[in-house]
Amino acid sequence: MGDEAGDPSERPGKTPRTARGRATLRKLLDAAAIEFGERGFHEASISGITRRAGTALGSFYTYFDSKDEIFRALVQDMSAQVGVHAAAAMQEAKSALDRERAALKGFLEFAREHKEIYRIIDEAEFVDSDSYRAHYQVTASRILARLKAGAETGELRDDVSELHAWAVMGMNVFLGLRYGIWSEDLAPDAIASAANDFIARGLKP
Amino acid sequence: MGDEAGDPSERPGKTPRTARGRATLRKLLDAAAIEFGERGFHEASISGITRRAGTALGSFYTYFDSKDEIFRALVQDMSAQVGVHAAAAMQEAKSALDRERAALKGFLEFAREHKEIYRIIDEAEFVDSDSYRAHYQVTASRILARLKAGAETGELRDDVSELHAWAVMGMNVFLGLRYGIWSEDLAPDAIASAANDFIARGLKP
Repeated sequence: MGDEAGDPSERPGKTPRTARGRATLRKLLDAAAIEFGERGFHEASISGITRRAGTALGSFYTYFDSKDEIFRALVQDMSAQVGVHAAAAMQEAKSALDRERAALKGFLEFAREHKEIYRIIDEAEFVDSDSYRAHYQVTASRILARLKAGAETGELRDDVSELHAWAVMGMNVFLGLRYGIWSEDLAPDAIASAANDFIARGLKP
Repeated sequence: MGDEAGDPSERPGKTPRTARGRATLRKLLDAAAIEFGERGFHEASISGITRRAGTALGSFYTYFDSKDEIFRALVQDMSAQVGVHAAAAMQEAKSALDRERAALKGFLEFAREHKEIYRIIDEAEFVDSDSYRAHYQVTASRILARLKAGAETGELRDDVSELHAWAVMGMNVFLGLRYGIWSEDLAPDAIASAANDFIARGLKP
């Protein structure tokens, strides 16, 4: 649920300079999402990634030095993609509560389309704990910024804090697990509305 | 956050018949929590567990056939321990909201004393996904039962549903991660009170 991809110079992997290079990098990351999602980090292989991507092994090493490096890049990429998706979903939102509703709905839709995201972020706890922590810290700080903006306009209570941001994030992550990954027995809109009603009552002044 | 250990005949591992046997099994599970928590499933070893437990290798095989089997038993044991701890914490609670506050406070205290619990439950997603799902399904259904009891006495809104139970569980799990495992910069009582205020407003009729 971040809003931007971050400084590319801080990302692992080399940044491509051409459109064709960017397309190859995108193919490798998308293939890595499937490979790591289906097989897990330990069973996944670089050749499995390039096979799925339809690229030569040499292309992989143009951008990454190792399986660890593409995994780290993938976690940061998925974290950023969730953010871009949420930001797009929030564009039309007119109030703090509308923003949270749109962000959750966007996240649920993204999770249903990319069911591998939970496995990959969760496996990062063991494979790349820095990226794991960064994902949740960045997400929580963005939620907190949104809640504080709502407090400033008087829409939300003025004591909104980091604790509330973590509570909202935990709610979203578990609703995504239950209704996005495990089963799709409720529509994203209905889930987002019910959760939003909870948040609205919980955080109104 | 379960309330009981479940039917022992359904648990992996053999059930000891003597007090001494139960003490040995307890030592093995406590040692396994440290071994798996520190080294992760793949690096952990049976000999590492028996060394930490101070038992002979033969004792291990009296109760378990493999590393997989003791891991499965450990996930179920930790899930049950969280439940027992929460149930004990809730004993004095007089209302539905008091129960949720006590359950969260008890969970935060338990998580601080047993920081390995997150790593172990989270690693179960990859090593023993049935136990992973069971842990959250059982926890959510117990929260839902408590919320419905609160709705019946008129303390909570009468449309409390599985979605609310998952929202509360997600909140608790993430507050435990942030304020139980990563850092202890807020007291369990303060966290439980702030979360309870959120839930109270969110779920009151």
